[in-house]
Amino acid sequence: MSGDLPAGGVPLAGFGSFYAGGRQVRVEGQPIARIQFTPTVDFDWDPNGLFHIEQAYVQWFVPIDRRHDRPVVLLHGGGFTGAMWEATPDGRPGWLQNFLAEGYPVYVVDNVERGRAGWCPFPTLWPGPPILRSAEEAWSLFRIGAAEHFAQRRPFDPQRFPIAAFDEMIRGSVPRFPRQTDDAAVLALGAVLARIGRPAALLAHSQGGEIALRTALDAPERIAALVLVESSGFPEDGARVGFPVLQVVGDHLDATPLWGDLSARYRAFAADLVRQGTRSDAWFLAERGVRGNSHMPMMDDNSAEIAGAIAHWLRAI
Amino acid sequence: MSGDLPAGGVPLAGFGSFYAGGRQVRVEGQPIARIQFTPTVDFDWDPNGLFHIEQAYVQWFVPIDRRHDRPVVLLHGGGFTGAMWEATPDGRPGWLQNFLAEGYPVYVVDNVERGRAGWCPFPTLWPGPPILRSAEEAWSLFRIGAAEHFAQRRPFDPQRFPIAAFDEMIRGSVPRFPRQTDDAAVLALGAVLARIGRPAALLAHSQGGEIALRTALDAPERIAALVLVESSGFPEDGARVGFPVLQVVGDHLDATPLWGDLSARYRAFAADLVRQGTRSDAWFLAERGVRGNSHMPMMDDNSAEIAGAIAHWLRAI
Repeated sequence: MSGDLPAGGVPLAGFGSFYAGGRQVRVEGQPIARIQFTPTVDFDWDPNGLFHIEQAYVQWFVPIDRRHDRPVVLLHGGGFTGAMWEATPDGRPGWLQNFLAEGYPVYVVDNVERGRAGWCPFPTLWPGPPILRSAEEAWSLFRIGAAEHFAQRRPFDPQRFPIAAFDEMIRGSVPRFPRQTDDAAVLALGAVLARIGRPAALLAHSQGGEIALRTALDAPERIAALVLVESSGFPEDGARVGFPVLQVVGDHLDATPLWGDLSARYRAFAADLVRQGTRSDAWFLAERGVRGNSHMPMMDDNSAEIAGAIAHWLRAI
Repeated sequence: MSGDLPAGGVPLAGFGSFYAGGRQVRVEGQPIARIQFTPTVDFDWDPNGLFHIEQAYVQWFVPIDRRHDRPVVLLHGGGFTGAMWEATPDGRPGWLQNFLAEGYPVYVVDNVERGRAGWCPFPTLWPGPPILRSAEEAWSLFRIGAAEHFAQRRPFDPQRFPIAAFDEMIRGSVPRFPRQTDDAAVLALGAVLARIGRPAALLAHSQGGEIALRTALDAPERIAALVLVESSGFPEDGARVGFPVLQVVGDHLDATPLWGDLSARYRAFAADLVRQGTRSDAWFLAERGVRGNSHMPMMDDNSAEIAGAIAHWLRAI
């Protein structure tokens, strides 16, 4: 972009943002501390008082060429924020841009503890410790390559993740408080869907899939369809799912025992939906002849094609 | 927005985002922990490895009706993120929208430790503790009203901050690590300006003013103008400032000794710039007949008028 103004992206009729959900809490009985805020400002800082925590932050975008009323809601996975949908690590348009180009209004969520939603630094409320994903963990968990090949950045073959931009991707990682904030995340996403106020196509990735599924089961009337991209969560046995579900799953599922187990659960979930009479599709991409997708299909070299296929599925339901 | 699609905002030719700056760090020698990531996924979590920390996150927006090549860069104050520029707490367009409507390309920064830039949870790298601003502190520090009138939410008279939306504003607060991350924030903002690649009008609020000023003095060739909205930072004595500076200051400056002191420094800074022969303007709004502005003029009821005045100033330099 050096020397030029930025270019690219889908023309928009407008965009905006809002916070939804969360709760007010009162902190009491903590000692006052002397804090140097800036070189010119220091004062006694009182950590006690009224705080608003566990809200979600949402940005919405409406394309000029809007062809659908149904909104698409994008929910990040664990350790990511809504920024993961904006651009691929190698600078191509992200799924946000792809769904806008398909004519959908799109809402991008930073759920509880992530990005602009903020987080709670009080151990009495969020005990922690928070964790941050290392590059090595991302390499292995996201099925980019074998753990022992991280140092050379030697990927699985075939591999569609843009390897040269792998280190760029980890810049988008933010801390998380595993499990502790899940219930708050479900409540906040529910508040987001209530604020949107019409049934949405909810598309969630990985750990976001668990949050999205729980939220959707709590308020199925707000869900036009649920798209789960390698979700880490599943309904409890016997749960009735009253909306169409599409699962999207990449390649190299034999890379680790975790992925073998999750694959079996994707299939069992799909079969259970069919038994319920619920519209269910499960795209194991490699079985459809599309080889080499990682856990991050929204960043892989065929990201636009996969978004296009999901948009096609959404139009048909 | 219930039942309707979102509306509003300035039509855009495009938008996008990027990360800039930061550094890779290697964590070693920390114990492995068993962590339950989701109901279905638990494993030995290794906190050691390669991480990318201290980057900035930037969203850029280009209006369809673009009338200027010079970009405007918006930098939040302490405990806020770039979201503070998007909308006022009572739902009016924020300065981001105002400057887009004026025809400027606008870059919105989440600097180090804030929002989508992420933060570093390793005490060996960022000792902490982080702090979060309480509603009471915001009430008093932002000159909404006297500390003893917080409970009744009784504001100063006149007061332009949208009092009914005060509690909405604190949803946008995020933790910060006072002073510890300042140097990293300066480096990251420098990387943002380098990536933008052309002289920008840099507009910063409060603690962001200190970061912006330091960054601008390090690379004046990247600065077309600096707009400081109640900055908490000033140049060292004798520092040469090679770009025009506008300071914007609200009302009720006698509310606390801190603000009395800062007011004197704003005047001294402006006088020093004039002595240097540098273009300097300092708008003490109350002295210009505009009464009742808080520390948050981008949220006050005359926010659009102030943005318009700043845009007018930018056009004239």
